[in-house]
Amino acid sequence: TISEQAHRLHPAVVALADAAAVGALDLPDGTARIDADDALTQMAVRDDVDLVIVATGGVVSLRPVLAALEAGKIVATANKETLVSAGHLVMPLAKARAAAAAAANPTDPMASPLAWVRPIDSEHSAIWQCLVGEDLADVSRLILTASGGPFREWSAERMAAARPEDALKHPNWTMGAKITIDSATLMNKGLEVIEAHWLYDVPYEQVDVVVHPQSLVHSLVEFVDGSLKAQLGLPDMRIPIQYSVTYPHRTAGPAPRLDLTEHSPMTFQAPDLQRFRAIPIARAAGEAGPGATAALIAADDVAVERFLAGSLSYLGMAGLVAAAVERYSVDHEPVLDELEAIDAEVRAWAHKIPEGALA
Amino acid sequence: TISEQAHRLHPAVVALADAAAVGALDLPDGTARIDADDALTQMAVRDDVDLVIVATGGVVSLRPVLAALEAGKIVATANKETLVSAGHLVMPLAKARAAAAAAANPTDPMASPLAWVRPIDSEHSAIWQCLVGEDLADVSRLILTASGGPFREWSAERMAAARPEDALKHPNWTMGAKITIDSATLMNKGLEVIEAHWLYDVPYEQVDVVVHPQSLVHSLVEFVDGSLKAQLGLPDMRIPIQYSVTYPHRTAGPAPRLDLTEHSPMTFQAPDLQRFRAIPIARAAGEAGPGATAALIAADDVAVERFLAGSLSYLGMAGLVAAAVERYSVDHEPVLDELEAIDAEVRAWAHKIPEGALA
Repeated sequence: TISEQAHRLHPAVVALADAAAVGALDLPDGTARIDADDALTQMAVRDDVDLVIVATGGVVSLRPVLAALEAGKIVATANKETLVSAGHLVMPLAKARAAAAAAANPTDPMASPLAWVRPIDSEHSAIWQCLVGEDLADVSRLILTASGGPFREWSAERMAAARPEDALKHPNWTMGAKITIDSATLMNKGLEVIEAHWLYDVPYEQVDVVVHPQSLVHSLVEFVDGSLKAQLGLPDMRIPIQYSVTYPHRTAGPAPRLDLTEHSPMTFQAPDLQRFRAIPIARAAGEAGPGATAALIAADDVAVERFLAGSLSYLGMAGLVAAAVERYSVDHEPVLDELEAIDAEVRAWAHKIPEGALA
Repeated sequence: TISEQAHRLHPAVVALADAAAVGALDLPDGTARIDADDALTQMAVRDDVDLVIVATGGVVSLRPVLAALEAGKIVATANKETLVSAGHLVMPLAKARAAAAAAANPTDPMASPLAWVRPIDSEHSAIWQCLVGEDLADVSRLILTASGGPFREWSAERMAAARPEDALKHPNWTMGAKITIDSATLMNKGLEVIEAHWLYDVPYEQVDVVVHPQSLVHSLVEFVDGSLKAQLGLPDMRIPIQYSVTYPHRTAGPAPRLDLTEHSPMTFQAPDLQRFRAIPIARAAGEAGPGATAALIAADDVAVERFLAGSLSYLGMAGLVAAAVERYSVDHEPVLDELEAIDAEVRAWAHKIPEGALA
């Protein structure tokens, strides 16, 4: 529980999304509590904060992230909304911080937007690690690897009848239910394509997805000279989490070492976009812009929830998301209030719409 | 011919190892010729030289390399003697240049010894590319990949009878005869282990060799946090040659792009050190120091020459090299004159010793 963690780690301050519940927590001496609605933002901009790690789901993190960047803090994010919904708001702040660092010293490790908005996703951490010391302008292609999930070899017919317990069997990573389902549909990869666009400032046509069932190559960067760089390792989130804190340095970590000879062969194949509709749906939303991706990610969240609860079929998830994007997209870049409003509207609609009404 | 090249490229100056032959060359107007014994050194230290690419074989390049570094030039080397024979003389100069750059700006791309002595070998270029933006102190292991050569699957008995035409069939790279034979015996990889020690300042026990028959992953770096980085590409030397000139930037190049899905699977296996004795022989010489590696590389050069000429068997190459290391090693770090003397002595002996006398 959070009280147990607080007694073990003695944090300076604890807050909860449910402000009212904070008062009931048993906290050690010296640990403050914040019971305000903007508690996360208050925490993120404290004078004694250098780096904010965003591990919440949903759009709740957007205000604290923007406030942290405006206050000169570094943000490391495991939250997909940070970039999928609000990349157009977040990255200009990161670029401004990087430009200020570059004005003092163009080769400063902080003279990169990625030093200010640090990805924790294993795929994006891999790309970031491949980009250190390189110039973003020299990138010709980003290649996101995907395990392919539990349905990689399933027929379309069999996938149509997939149950939650089938989709929760991720072959390589042990993760929460939401991201495990997103990994089964490959929506996770579709969202990462959108994140890549914002993080590395590359057009969508330069972001590819390759299925790599062994999950050892966490992603790759191709440069204009034809050279590729990849980051590899056993699937262990401690590596990217730690790197987001130690950048530009590295410190010894507990992750087990990859012995390539014990994990041979590695295979790579193109994703089947007929069976994994989430990738083209997400890519199209990304190309349409932030007015579409805010609806996409909110709808996906509800779709997964309904699939797990039994009120939506496996294929219904893609159908619900595509319908939400079509219905709730706006043709401009939403400001923060509007993003939150789209999120709420899409969620309310997506919870109620019967699967039969999607077609 | 060199005259044709000169008419096509109009270089400022042309020199030949055979000083007497330079006078006979047909050179275009505006191209000077140097007919001195130290012609290479004279060329390397010219005021209008920024970067010296070393593509000669043998110890002939050592004086010009040292002179170039002392004159503040950048050296890019495809010559193995630069580091295998003279790493102890070359790298302190590169480190001094890097330290001077670091004093002005610690994050300057020139604040690395690798910016001053740039490897062109595909394996070492791969490691260098993986190290840009990283701290050498954060490296835990270097993994050199080897194709395994044409004898990867051969039995020891069959290898004993291998002929030059068998060894000249490199599976992936089209190269000169000397390096192709060294790739068949894996002596090439043994020499690269020694180069790695000097280039990256790592102890020998942190340099591993992995056989990767597809030659797509050109080498890897493991960091202290458990993360690995690899550089990949189709086998094409134009990538590492170009990078040695454009570092820290990249420019569009003619090399074809690697599509991972067309080259799946990639495999990795440990090298068989019983069948490929060159690796442990080279590693032991490296651990013994520069007094041993100078003899090693000179003997290997003659061993390959004799194998190609039919006066030494396939297995005799390893025998000749091991015997030369035992006979001609000195227990101190030789200065340049002594390196050249060891080279000459070893070559004279290695040319004459009958295979039967090696045992």
